[in-house]
Amino acid sequence: MTLKDCMLVVAITALCLGPANAQSAKDAIEASNAEFMKSMNSKNAAGIASSYAEDAVALPPNGMRVDRRENIQKFWQGIIDYGVSDLKLNTVEVEERGDLAFELSSFTYKVPGKDSKPVDASGKAIVIWKKAQNGNWQIYRDIWNDDPAK
Amino acid sequence: MTLKDCMLVVAITALCLGPANAQSAKDAIEASNAEFMKSMNSKNAAGIASSYAEDAVALPPNGMRVDRRENIQKFWQGIIDYGVSDLKLNTVEVEERGDLAFELSSFTYKVPGKDSKPVDASGKAIVIWKKAQNGNWQIYRDIWNDDPAK
Repeated sequence: MTLKDCMLVVAITALCLGPANAQSAKDAIEASNAEFMKSMNSKNAAGIASSYAEDAVALPPNGMRVDRRENIQKFWQGIIDYGVSDLKLNTVEVEERGDLAFELSSFTYKVPGKDSKPVDASGKAIVIWKKAQNGNWQIYRDIWNDDPAK
Repeated sequence: MTLKDCMLVVAITALCLGPANAQSAKDAIEASNAEFMKSMNSKNAAGIASSYAEDAVALPPNGMRVDRRENIQKFWQGIIDYGVSDLKLNTVEVEERGDLAFELSSFTYKVPGKDSKPVDASGKAIVIWKKAQNGNWQIYRDIWNDDPAK
């Protein structure tokens, strides 16, 4: 097979795979993030966890790696109990390849300060999303960190 | 085109793209990380920067987003000047799709403590690697954070 043949085959493949990806990964991810924010800001850790794949991994700053959806739910319950609130996620970019996509996002939130008064904080994240058998994009790997303290 | 035709075309495409991926992304990434460690531990910020794509983005903890290789080099020069040393990177997993791959890694390093004595620290990272036109895998997006202080 020549390189030209290969390129033709790739082009045809791209065309015939096209219709299956009618909703872009970016649209699906932004919709999922809207649900994530709603769950976080209504203190619903189970709702947050439902955005994650069963075999997801979360890598929180100044915390140890958290494996699997059930433990990720407990992790977010801890964050909610600590008093984190007003999470706003902003998708900066998404690149999709097959059943994986990465998202670079920024976020803001409020966290209890020294006198328990909420303090503004912000950060950035990279999330690896995986397309499940049913076509839903789920959080597969999740890491984030904070910007400099304000 | 029927689904069966599509599957045939996908199979042929996979076959004809096969030989180009003789070195797995994981092998290439581990080799690149070996160079990264060597550069870091010999205080060579230009060497570190050469692992990154021209249009790379680094997202350091407690720092702002750093865009482009030249600024990433300055960032690492600052880390070297601060006295960070003995970086050890450990690739935990790699998943590759087309010209993108994500890597989950863990790392250890030494950082000057209160009395300037080196203190052990560790963390975890997700790196998005992109395959350049010449076939080299380069760091495209890079984010990391620390484990709890020891």
